[in-house]
Amino acid sequence: MESNIGQVMYGWATDLFPVNRSLTGEGVRETLNYFKSIIPELEIKSVPSGYKAFDWTVPDEWEIEEAYIKNQEGERIIDFKENNLHVVGYSEPVDKRLDLKELNEYLYSLPEQPDAIPYVTSYYKKRWGFCLPETQRKELKPGQYHVVIKSRFKQGVLNYAEIVLPGKSKEEIFLSSYVCHPSMANNELSGPVVTIALAQWLKTLNQREYTYRIVLVPETIGSIVYISKNLKELKNNVFAGFNITCIGDNRCFSYLPSRKGSTLSDEVALHVLQHTAPGFRKYSWLDRGSDERQYCAPGVDLPLATIMRSKYGEYPEYHTSLDNLNLISPEGLQGGFNALKKALSIIENNKILKSTVFCEPQLGKRGLYPTISVKGSANEARKMMNFISYCDGQHSLLQIAQKIGEPVWELYEIMEKLLENEVLEVVNQDK
Amino acid sequence: MESNIGQVMYGWATDLFPVNRSLTGEGVRETLNYFKSIIPELEIKSVPSGYKAFDWTVPDEWEIEEAYIKNQEGERIIDFKENNLHVVGYSEPVDKRLDLKELNEYLYSLPEQPDAIPYVTSYYKKRWGFCLPETQRKELKPGQYHVVIKSRFKQGVLNYAEIVLPGKSKEEIFLSSYVCHPSMANNELSGPVVTIALAQWLKTLNQREYTYRIVLVPETIGSIVYISKNLKELKNNVFAGFNITCIGDNRCFSYLPSRKGSTLSDEVALHVLQHTAPGFRKYSWLDRGSDERQYCAPGVDLPLATIMRSKYGEYPEYHTSLDNLNLISPEGLQGGFNALKKALSIIENNKILKSTVFCEPQLGKRGLYPTISVKGSANEARKMMNFISYCDGQHSLLQIAQKIGEPVWELYEIMEKLLENEVLEVVNQDK
Amino acid sequence: MESNIGQVMYGWATDLFPVNRSLTGEGVRETLNYFKSIIPELEIKSVPSGYKAFDWTVPDEWEIEEAYIKNQEGERIIDFKENNLHVVGYSEPVDKRLDLKELNEYLYSLPEQPDAIPYVTSYYKKRWGFCLPETQRKELKPGQYHVVIKSRFKQGVLNYAEIVLPGKSKEEIFLSSYVCHPSMANNELSGPVVTIALAQWLKTLNQREYTYRIVLVPETIGSIVYISKNLKELKNNVFAGFNITCIGDNRCFSYLPSRKGSTLSDEVALHVLQHTAPGFRKYSWLDRGSDERQYCAPGVDLPLATIMRSKYGEYPEYHTSLDNLNLISPEGLQGGFNALKKALSIIENNKILKSTVFCEPQLGKRGLYPTISVKGSANEARKMMNFISYCDGQHSLLQIAQKIGEPVWELYEIMEKLLENEVLEVVNQDK
Repeated sequence: MESNIGQVMYGWATDLFPVNRSLTGEGVRETLNYFKSIIPELEIKSVPSGYKAFDWTVPDEWEIEEAYIKNQEGERIIDFKENNLHVVGYSEPVDKRLDLKELNEYLYSLPEQPDAIPYVTSYYKKRWGFCLPETQRKELKPGQYHVVIKSRFKQGVLNYAEIVLPGKSKEEIFLSSYVCHPSMANNELSGPVVTIALAQWLKTLNQREYTYRIVLVPETIGSIVYISKNLKELKNNVFAGFNITCIGDNRCFSYLPSRKGSTLSDEVALHVLQHTAPGFRKYSWLDRGSDERQYCAPGVDLPLATIMRSKYGEYPEYHTSLDNLNLISPEGLQGGFNALKKALSIIENNKILKSTVFCEPQLGKRGLYPTISVKGSANEARKMMNFISYCDGQHSLLQIAQKIGEPVWELYEIMEKLLENEVLEVVNQDK
Repeated sequence: MESNIGQVMYGWATDLFPVNRSLTGEGVRETLNYFKSIIPELEIKSVPSGYKAFDWTVPDEWEIEEAYIKNQEGERIIDFKENNLHVVGYSEPVDKRLDLKELNEYLYSLPEQPDAIPYVTSYYKKRWGFCLPETQRKELKPGQYHVVIKSRFKQGVLNYAEIVLPGKSKEEIFLSSYVCHPSMANNELSGPVVTIALAQWLKTLNQREYTYRIVLVPETIGSIVYISKNLKELKNNVFAGFNITCIGDNRCFSYLPSRKGSTLSDEVALHVLQHTAPGFRKYSWLDRGSDERQYCAPGVDLPLATIMRSKYGEYPEYHTSLDNLNLISPEGLQGGFNALKKALSIIENNKILKSTVFCEPQLGKRGLYPTISVKGSANEARKMMNFISYCDGQHSLLQIAQKIGEPVWELYEIMEKLLENEVLEVVNQDK
Repeated sequence: MESNIGQVMYGWATDLFPVNRSLTGEGVRETLNYFKSIIPELEIKSVPSGYKAFDWTVPDEWEIEEAYIKNQEGERIIDFKENNLHVVGYSEPVDKRLDLKELNEYLYSLPEQPDAIPYVTSYYKKRWGFCLPETQRKELKPGQYHVVIKSRFKQGVLNYAEIVLPGKSKEEIFLSSYVCHPSMANNELSGPVVTIALAQWLKTLNQREYTYRIVLVPETIGSIVYISKNLKELKNNVFAGFNITCIGDNRCFSYLPSRKGSTLSDEVALHVLQHTAPGFRKYSWLDRGSDERQYCAPGVDLPLATIMRSKYGEYPEYHTSLDNLNLISPEGLQGGFNALKKALSIIENNKILKSTVFCEPQLGKRGLYPTISVKGSANEARKMMNFISYCDGQHSLLQIAQKIGEPVWELYEIMEKLLENEVLEVVNQDK
């Protein structure tokens, strides 16, 4: 599967790009159903509009049929059908004639990015508005405009989806991504497609050490709803996890810590990026902006870190129509997938190891060591001896890798060989 | 009061400058009585000469009536009346005729600072001597000189003063300054005048979280006496404090740590200086030289740090007649006062805070958050959200301020607003 | 003794240089007996061939009578009698005629060091071979060669030696060096000769605070045997120690940490080198290569650090005939001896001290402080006051020295003076 998983993920993103996702509504359901066709175990769940989740209330469902602005000549100069970013998310219905000056108060554009349609929403206060490129806006001529938004708010539901893949242990690794942005690619489609590809890969594992809980939720309100319904289980079971977002372009890698900043998830994320993308950008908790805000909030305190490609809020195309399928790529998605897969593999393999003998083992008699001592020959076996020297029942594989300056994944083979030869034994898994 | 407190403090220093303070005697009493006229709660106390305080003994009181050197022509070429630094502190009486060579053995001057009269004392060994500028010394002609010091030692007392301002808690913040140097301004008058101004300000507070114990003592022997009489209470009650010295010139700011080096007092002092005087000089415990030597000594171990302007021993005018009213200024005193006031306010306000809700609060519905999401708008509310993200019942206001890179005093308003809105609650005061 | 101990040690090394040491056999016994003639307390012990020590088995004893290569003309072109490095250690017997091509497979030389005979061994796999300079090898002409090694393996013993010098406490400082290399000087003779000189010095001490356990063992197998026979006592009693190796040349100093890296031995080693050889080279545990591999191994975990001159594996002459008596020197050995002696002295003197008085003591009345205060005079007594300020019953002499930035050995006199004057008392020894 994996050799072309980048291409596969890019295909999913292409299929889902036109869908008009929002916090609630048909677009979210269509997206979740698409993923369910790939992972049948995905359970699609809902809470009703008005549902109270901690300090928040689930908003009404928003439906939009059509939306446009016609000029004096009756031409649709802006049409929601052409790009679902043209309408402010959660716009209330309108059908009005306005002159250009009045209209301007309902228009959003970006003077510094004149070709981009900005992405604007107003979930919790009733508003309406249109978004358009600055270049188009500048060409609007004085005159009468007819604005129409055929939308409505209805008592409906907020949808989210969940997969639980059981493992040897009931302790959980938590993966979360979000499905609430209309046609944008790095933020957001890269997130759910990489998450679903990881779920596919996890399903193929013969044996999972841990249970995986994987969710796709609308950002903020969705994660708050999810936490409110599962707080106790999450707090009891989740010992590591990642929020998966902005993971599809092929530029830099980025890391954003959990609030506490030195959880296993953080250490694993840093280890992977240090060894595979040494120039990665390291953000601080103060730079956060996605669902780690909820998962790591006081009282919730889940140990989630974030591995990204170009971080939300930091790349110029963010939250505009330029964040499209040209920005992400099969290679970019594949790179993000690989980094997260490496991270999860480290946690799966993070055994605490102990030498079965006092002093150094005699590797020569097991065929694991050169039998003649000439100047330099000792170096060959040094990596293995360094490894063993920290197998004292107090260091995990990750900690040993850090101590001896090797990536964890280059120690898997040595570990297996030494376990087979009974030079080492597993004391425990480290969490 | 505060707008002109610098000017007021400078006035007090001007009044007190001519007084001939020493470890004991009339000069100390006159100085303490002057402060009692400002703060009537000031209690002036004493212990008798010969009193044993730990390893030390209170010396006899030293009285000096007059002191001069006459030349062959009978002219008073040096006269204690002109500057009380002219006589070595605690000089024994003398009435002798000496030639220049003999006289020279009793003269103190500073070749590198030829215009300065040095400040010299000999408290614990009987000596006599005169101090004069190097320039004057060089002009002394061979011949007979008549030296007269009309001083005497008598069984008397050592005086010190104490104010206790009660607060909600019996736990105490300790402020100490000293009154034992004759006419010198930065070291020492800046210390007691800023201390008294702080006492005045503390008296105006509607409610003090903590009890304040404020003392003025002769340096070293006075603080040792004070500790010997109050050791148990000090150790039981004092959780923070400052030794107040060299706080009146308008040059740099300086910080000297407590012996343990990371007490609340240290952290508060560093926080204030980092945010108000980023170029401040950071000394080590090995650079100490004032009463922190006693307060932080083994077995006493009070958590006192020091915020200074130009530190004793480090500025050229130190311990000479050049440390005069020109060296300090209303602005300099005001700056020192402000820094210490900020420090005490931080301790008063250092609450441990906890969010009342799980996940992030919905600030929008409380009018605390922008209701439309456009690119960049989230930044406005970010400071508040950063603040809340650390309100987990485990961080004090100071610790939160450090985490989010803001001065504590810029968080007071946010804290009040969030407490009013019941988004936060106070768990405790941090000490 | 000490003034010429460098010369004395160099004499011992000169005597022992020609001896053909190996893991086992006559060379080791001759070497140990030589040292027993200096330190009669040295006990020479043995375990039989075939003895199982943890994962290892003691090999047979290796005896070698003669070994040479004759050319077609019958001339001995290589002869073990000329240099015992000429034969691969533990070579099996051979008596064969070979042409040059065949012979070449049994020859070892170093193209980058054409004048050096390399040191090669094959302890655990049967082989034979000859070592020679690359220059000589290049001159070998095609033709028949006669190779003879008259060696044999026999059921014998592995020897090692031990001295225990009792002290006030049963807790032990452990010193180990090795005796298994033929004619090489820095690695190895410097190690045992410095160790024996330290034993001599320790014997002269009136009173040792601690018990010293000092061993000379064949490297690796010898230390493993020693540990296997003494594991429990070592783990119970040893709280500090040094592996002594490569300590005889007069180039740089080096430090290699214990596995845990911050034991008392490590701190002491770093302190000595920081103050006596500030440019010393600091290696990591990953650079290890001597018996610390066993002593610090998981399950053994003795707190041994290493102070060296030029480290094994790092200097060009290492494991070749160039590591000879010209490489080491009386000065080099003396420097190494001095560093280790300083280190042991620090541990012997590492008292936890406490001031007997509250506040600062009055040093003046004890004649320990200048009695007149003039600008600068306080500095003289500052070192003593700094020292006292950390005598709080919680810092050892070493920790105080680090805090005040002085070498421990410059505080011995102050400590004695203050103990005599009862300004300080000893709370405990720190380990």
